[in-house]
Amino acid sequence: MYTIEGQLQYELLKRLFPICRSITGDGVRKTLKIIQEMIPLQIHEVRTGTKVFDWEVPKEWNIRDAYILDENGNKVVDFQKNNLHVVGYSIPINKEVDLAELNQHLYSLENQPDAIPYITSYYKEHWGFCISHNQRKQLKEGKYRVYIDSELKDGFLTYGELIIPGNTKEEIFLSTYICHPSMANNELSGPVVTTYLAKWIASVQRKYTYRIIFIPETIGSITYLSRNLPQMRQNIIAGFNVTCVGDERAYSFVPSRYGNTLADKVALNVLKYRHPDFIRYSYLDRGSDERQYCSPGIDLPITSIMRSKYGQYPEYHTSLDNLDLVSPLGLQGSYEVLKECVEVLEKNEKYKTNCLGEPQLGKRGLYPTLSTIESSKIVRAMMDFISYADGTNDLIDISNIIKVPVKDLFPIIDRLYEQNLISVVDEKSKVLI
Amino acid sequence: MYTIEGQLQYELLKRLFPICRSITGDGVRKTLKIIQEMIPLQIHEVRTGTKVFDWEVPKEWNIRDAYILDENGNKVVDFQKNNLHVVGYSIPINKEVDLAELNQHLYSLENQPDAIPYITSYYKEHWGFCISHNQRKQLKEGKYRVYIDSELKDGFLTYGELIIPGNTKEEIFLSTYICHPSMANNELSGPVVTTYLAKWIASVQRKYTYRIIFIPETIGSITYLSRNLPQMRQNIIAGFNVTCVGDERAYSFVPSRYGNTLADKVALNVLKYRHPDFIRYSYLDRGSDERQYCSPGIDLPITSIMRSKYGQYPEYHTSLDNLDLVSPLGLQGSYEVLKECVEVLEKNEKYKTNCLGEPQLGKRGLYPTLSTIESSKIVRAMMDFISYADGTNDLIDISNIIKVPVKDLFPIIDRLYEQNLISVVDEKSKVLI
Amino acid sequence: MYTIEGQLQYELLKRLFPICRSITGDGVRKTLKIIQEMIPLQIHEVRTGTKVFDWEVPKEWNIRDAYILDENGNKVVDFQKNNLHVVGYSIPINKEVDLAELNQHLYSLENQPDAIPYITSYYKEHWGFCISHNQRKQLKEGKYRVYIDSELKDGFLTYGELIIPGNTKEEIFLSTYICHPSMANNELSGPVVTTYLAKWIASVQRKYTYRIIFIPETIGSITYLSRNLPQMRQNIIAGFNVTCVGDERAYSFVPSRYGNTLADKVALNVLKYRHPDFIRYSYLDRGSDERQYCSPGIDLPITSIMRSKYGQYPEYHTSLDNLDLVSPLGLQGSYEVLKECVEVLEKNEKYKTNCLGEPQLGKRGLYPTLSTIESSKIVRAMMDFISYADGTNDLIDISNIIKVPVKDLFPIIDRLYEQNLISVVDEKSKVLI
Repeated sequence: MYTIEGQLQYELLKRLFPICRSITGDGVRKTLKIIQEMIPLQIHEVRTGTKVFDWEVPKEWNIRDAYILDENGNKVVDFQKNNLHVVGYSIPINKEVDLAELNQHLYSLENQPDAIPYITSYYKEHWGFCISHNQRKQLKEGKYRVYIDSELKDGFLTYGELIIPGNTKEEIFLSTYICHPSMANNELSGPVVTTYLAKWIASVQRKYTYRIIFIPETIGSITYLSRNLPQMRQNIIAGFNVTCVGDERAYSFVPSRYGNTLADKVALNVLKYRHPDFIRYSYLDRGSDERQYCSPGIDLPITSIMRSKYGQYPEYHTSLDNLDLVSPLGLQGSYEVLKECVEVLEKNEKYKTNCLGEPQLGKRGLYPTLSTIESSKIVRAMMDFISYADGTNDLIDISNIIKVPVKDLFPIIDRLYEQNLISVVDEKSKVLI
Repeated sequence: MYTIEGQLQYELLKRLFPICRSITGDGVRKTLKIIQEMIPLQIHEVRTGTKVFDWEVPKEWNIRDAYILDENGNKVVDFQKNNLHVVGYSIPINKEVDLAELNQHLYSLENQPDAIPYITSYYKEHWGFCISHNQRKQLKEGKYRVYIDSELKDGFLTYGELIIPGNTKEEIFLSTYICHPSMANNELSGPVVTTYLAKWIASVQRKYTYRIIFIPETIGSITYLSRNLPQMRQNIIAGFNVTCVGDERAYSFVPSRYGNTLADKVALNVLKYRHPDFIRYSYLDRGSDERQYCSPGIDLPITSIMRSKYGQYPEYHTSLDNLDLVSPLGLQGSYEVLKECVEVLEKNEKYKTNCLGEPQLGKRGLYPTLSTIESSKIVRAMMDFISYADGTNDLIDISNIIKVPVKDLFPIIDRLYEQNLISVVDEKSKVLI
Repeated sequence: MYTIEGQLQYELLKRLFPICRSITGDGVRKTLKIIQEMIPLQIHEVRTGTKVFDWEVPKEWNIRDAYILDENGNKVVDFQKNNLHVVGYSIPINKEVDLAELNQHLYSLENQPDAIPYITSYYKEHWGFCISHNQRKQLKEGKYRVYIDSELKDGFLTYGELIIPGNTKEEIFLSTYICHPSMANNELSGPVVTTYLAKWIASVQRKYTYRIIFIPETIGSITYLSRNLPQMRQNIIAGFNVTCVGDERAYSFVPSRYGNTLADKVALNVLKYRHPDFIRYSYLDRGSDERQYCSPGIDLPITSIMRSKYGQYPEYHTSLDNLDLVSPLGLQGSYEVLKECVEVLEKNEKYKTNCLGEPQLGKRGLYPTLSTIESSKIVRAMMDFISYADGTNDLIDISNIIKVPVKDLFPIIDRLYEQNLISVVDEKSKVLI
C-alpha cells in the first residue's frame, strides 16, 4: 500500500499534468513555479542563440490555441481538450485546406488507433496536428480550417536548479526533465519524484552536496553541462537521471557508458535486494540525458533507475501515457529506491576491524540473549561484515560479498562502532565496481 | 580399497575416541601424549587469564564423573557410558531436583530422537546434561539427583606443536583441533590424519618447513596466533585447517577469505582432477579456525579440504558422529588428497623452456618407441607443458591450462630437466591464482 | 555463389595438385615456380645440415618413380597413379620380398578401407608403401618386387618469401605450407588462398608491410624463424597461419597461446559477425606452424582461421582429401574472411570524438532524409560509435561493444571524419583484447 508520500506525489503530478510544456516557453516556467512552492528552485533563463557545445539554444515557442474546423464550423480537433493534438514547435497557421493537404500535416498511429501520438519538430520549421487513427478515418473530403495560434521567436530556454549543500563539496546529482506536454510516466513522474526527493534530502543530515536540476531533455542537459562542466566533473561522485518512475510495472536500469561507476554500483546493489526482478538494460539502450552525461569527455557517473523504460511500453509518447498509467504506489516505489540509493551513498565508507582474529562478541553483549532465526542471522551478518571490513571494501562491496542489503548493515555498523570494534578508513576516492 | 595407512589411522582414532576432551584440561593432555608416541610434538601450556587478542585464556576444566539418579537410585544418565552426556564446562553440582528443574538443564534433539547432542558452555558458568529425546520422553515426574564431579579453576590451555624444518624458512602450515569429546568425523579424524601426514612429511625430502599444530578450536587458534603471528605472516605460503576428514562422503572445500591464495590454488587443482564432484563452499560458509587464520590483519593463506563439512551432515555434533561414521577408507582418501597438495606445493616452480620453437624430441629419445594412446597422451602433455613453460606460469597454472594433473607432469618434468630442455625460474614470490 | 576469384583459386589448386611435394626437393621448387607466375616470390635455399634452433635442415629427398610388381609383373601399386602410395622420404629400394615382409612396409586404414593414407618418415630412414585397405586384403601370398627410385642426399630446404612494403615498418604476416603431396584441403588450399591474398594486397593502398611465406611445415617455419626472428618480433602486429581453407564446411579458429593478441581479436571479431557458427578451438588443439610461431620466446601474434580443421575431418591425411573435397566456393569464403581481417587491421585505429555531448547530426546532414529501418540502424550505429570513440577503444573494441561489424563502420567513420567530428588517436601500440 502507498503512504502519504505517494499520494502527495500523485497530487502534484495531477496538478502539473494539464500544462502544455515544451523544450522552451511558458509551460516550463509555469511548471517550475509550482515546484518552487515545494523546494527553493533557482530558475535560469538562457538566451536563444547561445552556443552550447555543438548546439545552440533554439527559439522560444509558445502556443495559446489551436484547432481544426470542418466545413460546418465544428471543432474536429481542439488543442484545449488535449495539448498533444498540436505538433510541438508548430509555427502559426490559419488557412483553409482540403483533406489531401490536411493529411500531409496529420499524425496518427495505425497500430494504436485510439491514441493521440506525441510529435515534435524542434529543429525544422513545420506545423501539424496529432489525432487518433480512428478519428482520422472518419474525416470526410471537404474543406478544413487549420488554426494554430503559436509564436516562435527569440527568447529563452528555462531551467530550474537546486543546490543543497552538505558537509563536503562532493556532489550527488539528480537530473529530471520538464519538456513534455500532458504525459504522465514519461514525463511528469520524473520531476514529481525528484521534487519529493529534494524535500527529503533538505530535511536530513548530509555528507554530500546535492545538485538537482529540472531541465528540458537533450538541449537542456547540453546547455546545463556547457555552463557547469568543470565543477560537475570535479565534484559529482554519483547521479541519477530521474525519468519514467510513475507506473507500477517492473523496475528498469540503464547503466553508465562502461557500467563501472559508483552510480552503477549503488543502483545495482539496491535493485538486486529490493527488486531482484528488475530489467537490466545496456548502455546501448540509452535514450535520455545519460546520452549527454555519459558521453566521452563529459564522463559523469550517471545511471537511470526507472519503472517502464521510455520506448519500451505501449503507452509511451501517446495520450495513453496519462493519469491512469501512473499511480501513488508506482511513484512511491521509485521514490523509495532512489532514496535508498542516496542513504547508501551517504553511509558508504570503507571500514576496518580494530582487532586481530574474531572479536569476542559475548563479553560485549553483542550476542542476542534470545537465539532466534532472526537473531542468528544478525550475528552471522555481523561476523561476515567484520570478516570483510579489512579496509579494502566499501559498504556496498561488503553488502555484495556477504549478500546482505546495505541498509540491514546500518544498525550492525552502529553497534560495532560504539564498541570501538571498527573504524572508518579515511579515503574518499571515487570507488569503482 | 584402503591400505595399511587407512587402517593405522582408524586404529589411532579408535584409541583416542573414549577420551573426554574439551578446550582445556587433562583430556587434551592425554590425547597429545598418545600422538607424541608417533610424532615428536612439543606440548605448550598457556596460563588461564592470559590475554590473547580480544580474548583471554579461560579456566581449565576437568571432570571425573557425572550421572543422574532417579528416585530408585538407578543411573538414568551416566557420563561413564558416553561423555557427551555432560554439557562441556559444566560446573560441579550435587543436588536433588524435581523433573521441572531438571528439564531446564536437559538438552535433546526432537528431530533426532536417538542422538545425544553435543553442547558446551565455555564462557558462561552453567551445568547441564545431554540425552536422547527418546530417553527424555520417558523421564517420569519425581525427584532426581544430579551429580557432576567437575572442576573449573585457574590452570592452562594446552596445545601441541611440531616444526619440521625444510630447506627454506618458508612454511606450509597444518592446523587441527583436539577439543571435542567422543566424536569421530568432527573431530578425531582431523588430528589422526594430521599425525600421519606429519609422519610422512618428516620422512621425505622437503623444500619447505612445516608448522603443524594440535589446538583447541577458536580459543586455541587465537592463542597460537597471538604468540606466533609475525613469523607465521612472514613464512607461511599455504596451509590447511584439517577437520572433518573421516567419512566416505563427497569432498568439500572452504576457500580463504578471497579465495585467491596459493592454498586455494593447490586445493582446487588437486580436487578438480581427483574428486571432480567435490562440493565448493563459500567463505561465508566458514565455521572453523579459518575464521581466525583468514581474518583481516591475520590474512593467512589457509583453506579447508574436508569430507562431510561441519554443520552439513546429520550426525554432526551428536553421538551419531561415532566410529561407524568414519572408516579407514574415508581417512585414507583425505590423507591422500592432503598429501598430494603437499607434493604439488613442494614441486610448484615456474619453469621456462630453454629452446626457441619446439624442441626436437625424436633425437633425444623423448618420443616413445611404441605409439600407444597412453604414450601419445604423454607426448601431448609434454608438448603442452613446454608450450606454457614460458617463465610466467607455475606448475599449477600449467596443469590448469593444459588439463593434466600436476602429479602426471612430474615424470615429464624430470625427463625434460635431464635433457636440459627446461629451467626453473628462480622466483619464489607468493603465487596467486 | 562463387565469383571469378574462387574459380581462379580452384584452377590454381588443380594445377598444383599432381605435383609430389615433400618438406624438401623438386616438388617444392616446381610449386613455388608456378606461384611465382602470379606473385613475385623470392625463393630461398637453405643447405642440408644447417642448424636451425634445436633442429637441423634434413637431407633433400626426391623421387622419380615407385611401384610394386606381383609375380605376374602387374603393377599392383603405382606411384605415377597417386603419389600418396609412397611413404614420404622413403629410401631407394629394389628387391623381391614375400608378402609377410611386404606387409611390414605397407600402411592402410582399416576404418577407411577405400582411402590411401598419407605417411612420412622424415627423421628415420625407412621405406614403405601406402594403399587402400581393400586392396591390401586382396594381396595374395607370393613374391613381390618393391621398387622405389628415390634419392636422399645433402641438398637444400626450399621456401618462398614475399615482402610487400607498406607505409610503416609494422608487419602483417601470412604463412602457409607447400610440403604435402596430392592433397587438397590440407594442404593446397593454403598456398592457393595465400597467393590470391598476396595479389590483392599488392594491388591496394597499405598502411602495413606484409610478410608472406610459403614453407614446409614445422622444419620450414623453424628454419624461417631462425633466420628472421628479430625483425619478426619487432615488426609483426598480427598474422595468420593459412591452412585448411578449401572445403565448404563450418569455419574453425585456433587462437594464439594465450588468445590475447591482435590476431585473435580481429579473427574473432570477423568470424563472430560473418560466420557466427564457427568452431572455436583451444590452443591445446593446435597442430600446425602456430606451434612454432606462438612458442615461448617466439611469441608472435598468430592465429589460424580455417574451414575443416586438420585432424578433425574424416578425409584428413588420406587420398580422400582430393579435388572433390574442396571447391571454388570454399576457397573463396576463406579468402574473403582473411581479406576482411586484413581490411579491418588496416583501418583499426583508436578514435576520439571532437565534441562534448552528442553532436547535432541534423545541421550536418547526417540524419537520413528518409527514415527507414535501415537508415535508423545507421544513425544508431553512428551515435553508438561516437559514444565509445573516447580514445581508449580501437575500432574492433567499438565493434564488439556496439555489436556492429567493423566494415559497416567504415562509411560512418568516413562521414564523421569529413565533418571533423572525430580524430584518430595517434598511438600505434600493439593492442590486446
